[in-house]
Amino acid sequence: MTNVRRKSAQLAENPLFTNTIIGLIIVNAILVGLETYPYFINRFHDWFVIIDKLLLWVFTFEIIIRMIGSKSIGSFFKDPWSLFDFVIVASGHVLVGGHYVTVLRILRVLRVLRAISIIPSLRKMVNALVKTIPSMGTIMLLLGLFFYIYGVIGTMMFSSIAPEYFGSLHDSLLTLFQVITLESWASGVMRPILAADPSSWWFFVSFILVGSFVIVNLFVGVVVGNVEEANREETPTPTDIKLEEVQKELHEIKQLLKKENQ
Amino acid sequence: MTNVRRKSAQLAENPLFTNTIIGLIIVNAILVGLETYPYFINRFHDWFVIIDKLLLWVFTFEIIIRMIGSKSIGSFFKDPWSLFDFVIVASGHVLVGGHYVTVLRILRVLRVLRAISIIPSLRKMVNALVKTIPSMGTIMLLLGLFFYIYGVIGTMMFSSIAPEYFGSLHDSLLTLFQVITLESWASGVMRPILAADPSSWWFFVSFILVGSFVIVNLFVGVVVGNVEEANREETPTPTDIKLEEVQKELHEIKQLLKKENQ
Amino acid sequence: MTNVRRKSAQLAENPLFTNTIIGLIIVNAILVGLETYPYFINRFHDWFVIIDKLLLWVFTFEIIIRMIGSKSIGSFFKDPWSLFDFVIVASGHVLVGGHYVTVLRILRVLRVLRAISIIPSLRKMVNALVKTIPSMGTIMLLLGLFFYIYGVIGTMMFSSIAPEYFGSLHDSLLTLFQVITLESWASGVMRPILAADPSSWWFFVSFILVGSFVIVNLFVGVVVGNVEEANREETPTPTDIKLEEVQKELHEIKQLLKKENQ
Amino acid sequence: MTNVRRKSAQLAENPLFTNTIIGLIIVNAILVGLETYPYFINRFHDWFVIIDKLLLWVFTFEIIIRMIGSKSIGSFFKDPWSLFDFVIVASGHVLVGGHYVTVLRILRVLRVLRAISIIPSLRKMVNALVKTIPSMGTIMLLLGLFFYIYGVIGTMMFSSIAPEYFGSLHDSLLTLFQVITLESWASGVMRPILAADPSSWWFFVSFILVGSFVIVNLFVGVVVGNVEEANREETPTPTDIKLEEVQKELHEIKQLLKKENQ
Repeated sequence: MTNVRRKSAQLAENPLFTNTIIGLIIVNAILVGLETYPYFINRFHDWFVIIDKLLLWVFTFEIIIRMIGSKSIGSFFKDPWSLFDFVIVASGHVLVGGHYVTVLRILRVLRVLRAISIIPSLRKMVNALVKTIPSMGTIMLLLGLFFYIYGVIGTMMFSSIAPEYFGSLHDSLLTLFQVITLESWASGVMRPILAADPSSWWFFVSFILVGSFVIVNLFVGVVVGNVEEANREETPTPTDIKLEEVQKELHEIKQLLKKENQ
Repeated sequence: MTNVRRKSAQLAENPLFTNTIIGLIIVNAILVGLETYPYFINRFHDWFVIIDKLLLWVFTFEIIIRMIGSKSIGSFFKDPWSLFDFVIVASGHVLVGGHYVTVLRILRVLRVLRAISIIPSLRKMVNALVKTIPSMGTIMLLLGLFFYIYGVIGTMMFSSIAPEYFGSLHDSLLTLFQVITLESWASGVMRPILAADPSSWWFFVSFILVGSFVIVNLFVGVVVGNVEEANREETPTPTDIKLEEVQKELHEIKQLLKKENQ
Repeated sequence: MTNVRRKSAQLAENPLFTNTIIGLIIVNAILVGLETYPYFINRFHDWFVIIDKLLLWVFTFEIIIRMIGSKSIGSFFKDPWSLFDFVIVASGHVLVGGHYVTVLRILRVLRVLRAISIIPSLRKMVNALVKTIPSMGTIMLLLGLFFYIYGVIGTMMFSSIAPEYFGSLHDSLLTLFQVITLESWASGVMRPILAADPSSWWFFVSFILVGSFVIVNLFVGVVVGNVEEANREETPTPTDIKLEEVQKELHEIKQLLKKENQ
Repeated sequence: MTNVRRKSAQLAENPLFTNTIIGLIIVNAILVGLETYPYFINRFHDWFVIIDKLLLWVFTFEIIIRMIGSKSIGSFFKDPWSLFDFVIVASGHVLVGGHYVTVLRILRVLRVLRAISIIPSLRKMVNALVKTIPSMGTIMLLLGLFFYIYGVIGTMMFSSIAPEYFGSLHDSLLTLFQVITLESWASGVMRPILAADPSSWWFFVSFILVGSFVIVNLFVGVVVGNVEEANREETPTPTDIKLEEVQKELHEIKQLLKKENQ
């Protein structure tokens, strides 16, 4: 049994094996792309179904090998990337039937995301990105509060003037998201409302000023902070190299002094 | 009396107490959100009024406890966050009557902001944000001057061509704010004016170039500067750690030399 | 004569004097603002003319005092801010007559810019901004080349499809400026052209990708670089402070050693 | 023969020679600009053709001189800038004939790009820019994946609702590029789709949030990182200067100690 596990682990780490899987993920990606063109789907529909079934079984086989090759089933599922691969592939087997046609099609697209879990440089980058999320937690809470308060006030004030933008709280939140991206905030949203309520400009101007100030100050702040931290950790600066030389020299001087003292 | 104060201070810092208040602020937030939906407000109007009264009294009770628990009434009001909490809650009692319906509704929404004063991480972040405002004072003055001059010139030149955008000085300033956010500045504002005054493009292009140059150069500059300063203060760099080792070693060498000299 | 010069120099640096001038610049700013409202200009036209004449003479008087107070006429005109003040005020006297009504009105607005030359913090900031311009020279040249080439190609390809955007080289350059600000580049400019020339998307997509890449990479680069340099110069870091302590200690050790050697 | 090579190399590096070429590139740039105006092309068509032929031959002559002056033909073509110059000029000779009129006109415009290869500061800057491209490779791959997945899902869901935006995969990708630049993403693209499919907002909001998060976090990260690295390499910081002084002093102390020990 341990023999099987060792061989599976070896196979799972074999570059030929992983490159084949990467190749098949690319094939899968091209397939889901071609499927969106009526020309192809109408002519080769059966081929698409067959290749898709085949790919699903190859990916299943791959996951099983990586499962057997891992230290234990527990350790396999502890790795979020393995879990992600498992869920994507397993749900392809579970959700069979006419009900789930759209879900299955989206699943087939999401299988392309498996490229991230297979290609190390991509996985490293996404891991780095995910790590920055917690440090943005408080910003997100603050922005959430800020959006919610403006959303409620916006709905209270403009729901009758501009029902398509501020008709209900969820409409308002979507409109505020549009406003913070600065898309048609004036020409589309504010100016028509301004015609009915001439003092409404403060709502939009203050929202944009405070919102962009908070986002720039904190979001960019976190990003720049992360970059600097990363830089500092990675490469020893010329200053550090010189300092180490100083330390060596000091050590030599101490040795000289001690010899003298004896 | 001191006994009462001590107990109040203890209660005010009790996690259970603060968490209850945070919970009630969330309840308040959900309520003001639901109130914007006609479906809920029509069916449960009386409930909303009752819960709102209840919440107002609980918050009043909380403020009174924190007031009693503070060293003196003066020190309570010196803290801007306490003052903010007091004003938000007190005005809920003062502004009673049909006249102030809209004001009262907005006040109820603003109570959600009390989450900032109660949750320490949010308070810390908002304090940090507010601290960066003074360092932007001169930028704001410069941008103000810049907007004012372009506003007056824009009104002088385009008030008859595009009265909806440059009809009066305050219209022009709002339009310039729209232009600096780059929203429809060409398609909506400039191109119709360009048709009547073919040389008007310099007004918009120079405004955008100078404005975005100033904003990027100074605003981003201040933000990056703040981040760096904060980073420097927080964590001792590896360089600093090595330098401290150097200092220790130097001290030892000096001791050795002094012993020798004696 | 030297006595007059010394007294003039003293007066020019008197805080009361400069504050009065700042006050009058604000009065001038309010006046040019009010003049844009037909309500005011119609009722108080004569007053506006009188106060404006008065302000012009006060500013003239101020410039003359600062001229006399300066070491020599040459040194006065060497300072670009003095030159700016002189030109703004002098042209108010020279350009008299019906021909120059609009020019004179704009000059009166530009007098507000004198606030920059008078208020030290503003002058310092604008000087810092102007200093960053040379380091952007090569970027500007590169962007200029890039705009010119795309402008010529755009005119060649789209002048018959979309004459209002690409009718001539200068139209194209203005349109490309609009595209690089991302304003209506797709909905307004590209999609109508795309309907006539389905391969035109590469023109816009490549322009935006390369343009924003160059601008972000170089412009932001220069800004961040400047900020870091400024930070480094202004405050000694904790590392520098520790290093100075190390240098002192080394000096003491050397003294001890020399004493010993004698 | 070596004599000819040496003389050619000397000529190619003669400032007068390179400045003449820069001047002729500017003449070429002005010509292609003027050619876009029907007024000029109609009156001076023959002149344009003659000057263009002349310029092409001068540039050919210049390339030949630089070729002869280089160590070997191989080393000439190894320099990407020389290769670029050669291709631009050579294709002007090869692509003769009525078929290639548009290609030839674009080639004449691209000759302006030769300014980059001739002016050292521009070449240095473009080289620096090109160097940052590899470090963005993984980001580009990640963004590519992200665009592709959203493109396929968007086509699957909205191709019947909004055929002009999501009619096929390549339409969707172009629309997603438009959305990520935030241009009319709400007013033009999302809101009409929202009317038919009220849950479609998550598609756009998640795309913008994730996309801008990835772009800001990684793109800006790389830029800031590059700037810092460049800064560090270029100028020795005051810290480094002090450290070098410390190192000198340590060396002196060691000399003193050694003398003593002897």
